[in-house]
Amino acid sequence: MTGARAGLLHTPHGVVETPVFMPVGTQATVKGLRSEELAGELGVQLLLANTYHLFLRPGAAVIRKLGGLHRFMSWPRAILTDSGGFQVFSLSALRKVTDRGVLFRSHLDGDLHEFTPESTVDAQIALGSDIMMALDECPPYPVGLEAAREAVERTVKWAREAFEHYRRRRENEEIRQALFPIVQGSTYPDLRRRCAEELRELGAEGYAVGGVSVGEPRELSLETTELTVPLLPEDRPRYVMGVGMPEELPAYVARGVDMMDCVLPTRNARNGYLFTSQGKLVIKQARYRDDPRPVDESCACSTCRRYSRAYLRHLYQAGEMLYSTLATLHNVYRYLDIMRGIRQAILLGKFPEYLNAVQSLSAEEP
Amino acid sequence: MTGARAGLLHTPHGVVETPVFMPVGTQATVKGLRSEELAGELGVQLLLANTYHLFLRPGAAVIRKLGGLHRFMSWPRAILTDSGGFQVFSLSALRKVTDRGVLFRSHLDGDLHEFTPESTVDAQIALGSDIMMALDECPPYPVGLEAAREAVERTVKWAREAFEHYRRRRENEEIRQALFPIVQGSTYPDLRRRCAEELRELGAEGYAVGGVSVGEPRELSLETTELTVPLLPEDRPRYVMGVGMPEELPAYVARGVDMMDCVLPTRNARNGYLFTSQGKLVIKQARYRDDPRPVDESCACSTCRRYSRAYLRHLYQAGEMLYSTLATLHNVYRYLDIMRGIRQAILLGKFPEYLNAVQSLSAEEP
Repeated sequence: MTGARAGLLHTPHGVVETPVFMPVGTQATVKGLRSEELAGELGVQLLLANTYHLFLRPGAAVIRKLGGLHRFMSWPRAILTDSGGFQVFSLSALRKVTDRGVLFRSHLDGDLHEFTPESTVDAQIALGSDIMMALDECPPYPVGLEAAREAVERTVKWAREAFEHYRRRRENEEIRQALFPIVQGSTYPDLRRRCAEELRELGAEGYAVGGVSVGEPRELSLETTELTVPLLPEDRPRYVMGVGMPEELPAYVARGVDMMDCVLPTRNARNGYLFTSQGKLVIKQARYRDDPRPVDESCACSTCRRYSRAYLRHLYQAGEMLYSTLATLHNVYRYLDIMRGIRQAILLGKFPEYLNAVQSLSAEEP
Repeated sequence: MTGARAGLLHTPHGVVETPVFMPVGTQATVKGLRSEELAGELGVQLLLANTYHLFLRPGAAVIRKLGGLHRFMSWPRAILTDSGGFQVFSLSALRKVTDRGVLFRSHLDGDLHEFTPESTVDAQIALGSDIMMALDECPPYPVGLEAAREAVERTVKWAREAFEHYRRRRENEEIRQALFPIVQGSTYPDLRRRCAEELRELGAEGYAVGGVSVGEPRELSLETTELTVPLLPEDRPRYVMGVGMPEELPAYVARGVDMMDCVLPTRNARNGYLFTSQGKLVIKQARYRDDPRPVDESCACSTCRRYSRAYLRHLYQAGEMLYSTLATLHNVYRYLDIMRGIRQAILLGKFPEYLNAVQSLSAEEP
């Protein structure tokens, strides 16, 4: 028995089949791909966009004026926006956390801004995403027990304030967006438990596991997920933020995870790392110079159907942007293909066998 | 009466409707566009690729081994390759021209190479383009009469050698590629005449006008074209290399030009300059920040059908590569749309009226 489950997530922009992997569209674009490709060939049902980046440029008010993020980026399906907190902690040079929120300087121009639980809900309502995230404090790894406890207390307080504000606004406006709180607590089981218990009281439509993929060893991300997921309501989607490698996706699903996001498929593609059914392929290697085979001979994506490793290597070496487009398309396809395989296995009642097969495969890898 | 004419150019990779504008795919890619978009939505029938660049990277032998340029870049339609001479003269730091050919150092790694009339034919045969160009010497503007005369003499000598070599190879191999010589002579009518007369003796399947767009004022490019085109055989395609601005295309066609190529639509797109039916649009301008309109309200391209000026400006400001893809698609569409309009006007016998209309339009522009 595993915790894997297949479900349907209903959003104002369509039904999302879970478990789902969300490609990251940081600045209202998945780098190098058009919405036609994302919605068409790739069949993406849910995209992630970053509130921090869009808040700074072009600004949430500009996007609202233009009809919201969906219309702005010509994206017909569902969007999840993060709260911006993670980027404030990872990108902004100067920041000051208070109980009220976080003061920070833009990494673009040094301007001073404040994110509060209320303001980040307002920004996400302006963006019009389908799923919004509550502002949290996300410490890096490792973090001492005391600092982790403070971050949990603040995260819970901010989540309460975010939900109060969100519900107040819903009384007066037609707001169909969901709001998910984020469980913090680093690698401390007691803190994770306490945080989850307090957030459950909010009766949210979904819950996220934050504070993973923040510098800890990969096994620890999975362990932390394993200990946190069972603390969340079973009848709500569970979203683990920022994971993972392609071979890790089944392990997360096996632990009851419904939603994941990660920059790995897109960022690795641009950096020359291609994910295949046979493992990672480093396109700049000289052995691909005249290799007529596709990146992955068992892949059905349009990059693999039309272009050779030799051509991709040439584009990469020549610094041609078409490389990034073709490589990103392939890597995202690979992730979504794995997720389709996982979902099908679950629906057929064959997920334990699927998991065994991929685990023995990855054990074989050098 | 004008010299405009509509024709059909038969190549091993399909029929090309003329007059035709060729987008430039320097390194076996039109920067930012996939072959699907070029052949599909854009309806490109003939692409230009640069022998110099492909000779240096990945190498003509690699491309031949991979089945030729068409298969390499997954391009089903016709390709014209230049001889490489122009890039040797414009990109290579060190070069030495002799009667035998040109010695140069690669702009990539400083390696020493030689292009001869024979070797550039061989390289283009290896690439497998549909139309090859003979090696020429292309002086910049301005150039003194004596240097221009020497360049013409060398260009004629090299063209003869290229054709001899080409015909010798055709005796033993199935080579279906055409070879065009290039008329030089700078802005000197006598030199142009002499060069054209000598090249006509080669009985080539098409002729090019080179040595324009090399630094001279735009009116002079057109004047030089006007004086050179009548010197070329009427029953062969005439190709003017490296022109022009969108509003100049009808003027070239009016002078009997059948083929043109230029980096302007693609390079300008990447630099933020978009061509519209109302003139040039500079996307970074603040007034487009929240402009919900498409780049060109009368354009039917997929960029204009789906995306706003505000979104394109955001992508441009954020340094997102999707900007270049969407902008390049639009600018190339614009060029090909103009060419379709020109061809239709010619076929309907209404080209003089078309020319009058666009000339009075561009006279109205500020």
